[in-house]
Amino acid sequence: MKHFSVALLGFGTVGSGVYSIVSENGAQIAHREGIALCVSRILVRDFDPEHEPNLHLAPRALFSTSFDEIVNDPAIDIVVECMGGIEPAKTFIIRALEAGKTVVTSNKEVMSKNWPAFEKAAKATGAGLYLEATVGGGIPIIRTILDSMQANNITRVMGIINGTTNYILTQMTESGQSFEDALKEAQALGYAEANPTADVEGYDAMYKLSILSSMSFHAHMPIEVIYREGITKLTKADFETAHLLNYRIKLLAIGKKEGNQIEVRVHPTMIPITHPLASVRGVFNAIFLTGHAVDDVMLYGRGAGCMPTASAVVSDIVYACHHDKQHKYMTFVNEESISSEIELVKDFHCIYCIRLHVADRPGTMANIAAAFAEQGVSLKSVIQLGENDGVSSRITFLTHAASEFGVNEALKKIEALACVNAVESMIRAEE
Amino acid sequence: MKHFSVALLGFGTVGSGVYSIVSENGAQIAHREGIALCVSRILVRDFDPEHEPNLHLAPRALFSTSFDEIVNDPAIDIVVECMGGIEPAKTFIIRALEAGKTVVTSNKEVMSKNWPAFEKAAKATGAGLYLEATVGGGIPIIRTILDSMQANNITRVMGIINGTTNYILTQMTESGQSFEDALKEAQALGYAEANPTADVEGYDAMYKLSILSSMSFHAHMPIEVIYREGITKLTKADFETAHLLNYRIKLLAIGKKEGNQIEVRVHPTMIPITHPLASVRGVFNAIFLTGHAVDDVMLYGRGAGCMPTASAVVSDIVYACHHDKQHKYMTFVNEESISSEIELVKDFHCIYCIRLHVADRPGTMANIAAAFAEQGVSLKSVIQLGENDGVSSRITFLTHAASEFGVNEALKKIEALACVNAVESMIRAEE
Repeated sequence: MKHFSVALLGFGTVGSGVYSIVSENGAQIAHREGIALCVSRILVRDFDPEHEPNLHLAPRALFSTSFDEIVNDPAIDIVVECMGGIEPAKTFIIRALEAGKTVVTSNKEVMSKNWPAFEKAAKATGAGLYLEATVGGGIPIIRTILDSMQANNITRVMGIINGTTNYILTQMTESGQSFEDALKEAQALGYAEANPTADVEGYDAMYKLSILSSMSFHAHMPIEVIYREGITKLTKADFETAHLLNYRIKLLAIGKKEGNQIEVRVHPTMIPITHPLASVRGVFNAIFLTGHAVDDVMLYGRGAGCMPTASAVVSDIVYACHHDKQHKYMTFVNEESISSEIELVKDFHCIYCIRLHVADRPGTMANIAAAFAEQGVSLKSVIQLGENDGVSSRITFLTHAASEFGVNEALKKIEALACVNAVESMIRAEE
Repeated sequence: MKHFSVALLGFGTVGSGVYSIVSENGAQIAHREGIALCVSRILVRDFDPEHEPNLHLAPRALFSTSFDEIVNDPAIDIVVECMGGIEPAKTFIIRALEAGKTVVTSNKEVMSKNWPAFEKAAKATGAGLYLEATVGGGIPIIRTILDSMQANNITRVMGIINGTTNYILTQMTESGQSFEDALKEAQALGYAEANPTADVEGYDAMYKLSILSSMSFHAHMPIEVIYREGITKLTKADFETAHLLNYRIKLLAIGKKEGNQIEVRVHPTMIPITHPLASVRGVFNAIFLTGHAVDDVMLYGRGAGCMPTASAVVSDIVYACHHDKQHKYMTFVNEESISSEIELVKDFHCIYCIRLHVADRPGTMANIAAAFAEQGVSLKSVIQLGENDGVSSRITFLTHAASEFGVNEALKKIEALACVNAVESMIRAEE
C-alpha cells in the first residue's frame, strides 16, 4: 500500500468536502485503489470562526496558518488549492510546484490566468498539476478530453459551464421573470454572489472556456483572446422571441477549430429546443464535445457545490497518486500569448436572430431586406407582428449562417433607415 | 518514444475503424501521447470479399488467417478483439492473455459471459484487459467509473444502452408507429439486424448492464442475476398512456445499490419527460450515474457505429500503452457466481403504471382500489376514460413506489374480479 499525505489550502466549501470524503471514504479508496490517503495539514487564514466557519469539521491539530510550514514539510506529497481568487493562491501554487509537490486545484481563475507559469514550475521539478475541478464541478470533462478522446481531432466544444447564469436563464424562460428578479432569487438561494459580476458578465465561463478549449484544441487559448458577453441585457422580449422560434436562450461557452483557425466565445446563445443542451435546467452544467471519430458526446452534471467539486478533487488526488512522478504535461506550447501557428477567428460565422422595431409602412421590409442582401446575409425566417398602436411592428429575422462583420455592417445601415425605430436585439444561434 | 505493435482480430465495422484512426491519426497520437502505434497484423476468416468486405481498406500484407501466427509473435504487444460472438473470440482472448498480451475488446457478449476467466488469465501474466468499447460505443463511461468516480459510493446506474431499441421506441413515441413497423424501418436503415432478438429482447442491454453494474458497485453481477424484459409487447396504447401522464417509454438498464443489497434489471421503463434520459432520441445512448458525492452525472453520445466505437478502442489502446505492466485489475472478487456478501433484490420497489380494461358499472373502482390497498399499494394517479361502447372503460393507475411482489399479488386478485375484462399492461416507472 502506497501512502500519500495531502495538505489542503483553504477550508471553505470545497476544502471541507475533500476532507469529509477522505475521512469517510478513505478506507474504501485504500481497498479499491491500493492508496492510503491522509489529510495531514489544512491551511486557514486564522482561527476566527467568523472567517473560517468550518473549523469544527476537523481536529484542531490539523489546522495551520503558515504556508511555509506546509511547503517545507517533506512529508507532504500533494497540495490541494481550493482558496479561490488570485493571491495568495498563485504564489502558493508556484511555491508548492517549485518544492516538487503535486498540485490539485479547483480554482479556474488563477489557473486560466497563470497556466503557463504553473506548467513551467511543475515541469522543472516533475510535479503533477491537476485541474479537473476547475470546470464543470463533478463532471469528468478534463479526464474525458485527456484520457478518452486521444483518437479524435476535437472540432467543437460547447457548453453550459456556469450554473448561476443557467439558473437565472431557466427562471426567465420558465417563469417569465425579468433578469433582475431572477438574479435576486438566485442570490436568495445562494446560487449567486452578492456581487454577481463574475457570473452574469461571463467571466467565470471565460476562465473555464480558456481551460477547456486549450485542452480540446491542443493550443493554449488565453482568456484575452476569448470574446465575452454576459446575460445582463437580455429582456423578456428576447425570451418571447426564442419561444416563438422554438429555441432556448443559454449562456454558452463555444470553441470551434477548423484547420489552424480557432474561435472562442462566451455569449447568450439560442439553441433549438431539441438540442440536448436546451434541456439542461437550473444549476446543472453540460458540455458537448465533437470529435471527428466519436462524433457528439455530452457530459452532464452538477457544475458546482461542495461534494460534486470535492468528488473531482479527490479523483484528481487518486489519479495523481497512481501517476506519481509520471505526470503527462500538455504537449502544446503553453505560452502566455496564443501560438503563432493558430489563426484566431474574429469574424464569427453563425446564425443571427435580430429583432427590430419598425414603422409599419410600405417599403419597410424591402429596405431592410436589401440591407441584409447587400452584405450577403441570407434570411431563413422572418416573423412580423404588428403592434397594438397600428403604426409600428416588431420584426424578427433569423439568418442562415452568416459573417458577423457582414451582419454588423447591415445593422448599421438598417439602424440608419428612417423606417427603423430601433435594433432591439441581436442574439447568436447555434444548431 | 515508446513503440507498440497492435494486432486486430476481425476487420468488420469496428476493426476497420480502428485501422483507419491509427493510420490517419497515428502521427498526432505519437506527438501528443509519446506513443508510436502500429497495426502490424489483421486476422480475417479468409480472403473472400463476400465474407470480408473491408479487405481493400488495408495492405494485403497485413492480413492473416492464422491466430497462431499472431499469438506466437513476440513483437505484438496488444491484441484488439472486435470479432463479436462467443467463439472463437473467447479462445483467442484467453490465449492472447496467457501469452502476456494486453487485450482490448469491444465484444460485450463474450466479456460479460467470461469476465472471471479473462481476468484470471490476465492476472496470471500481468496482461492488461480493457473494455471501454463494450458499453456505450464512444461514450467514455467505463473510464469515468474507474478513473473519475473513486471518491464515490455509486448507488445507481441507469441508462439507455441499446441504440436499436431506442430508435424503435423513439419512432413509436414520435410517429405513433407499431412495434412491427418501427422494427422494419430500423432494419431497413441498418440499425437492427435481420434477427433482432439480441436487441429487442434486451440481451444486448443485459450484457452491458452486467459490465456497468459490476464496475459501479464493485461486485461481479453475472448476467444470470439480471432481470430482463424486452420491448416486443409494447403497444400503441402504452405510448398513449405514457403521453397522457407526461412520461416517455425507454428500454432502461437499471442497477441500484443500498448497503449490500443490489438490484439489476433491463425492461421498458416510463420516465418523466423532464428527466434528461427522456430526451435521448434515436440511436443515441446515455448513462446516468448517481454517486454519494458527485450526485447525478450523465454521459451521452453515439452508442454504436464504426468510428465512435473505434474511438473508444483506440482510447483503450493508448491508455494501455501508458499503463504497460501496471494494469489495475478489478478489486472485487470476480467469480462466476455473485458474491455471497451481496444480497440480490428480487422484489423491486418502484412505481408501476397499470392499465386495466373494465366493465363500466358501480363498484368497479371500489373493488380494484381495495385489492391494491390490501397489498399496501398506494395510488398516485388514476385516470379513467370511458370507451365508446358505453359499457366498458380503460383505467390507468400510477402507483407510488411499491413492492413488485405486492403489485403482482394485487393484479392476480384484480384479474379475477368479475368487473375486470383484462389487465392490459404493467410498466415500471423511475423518477
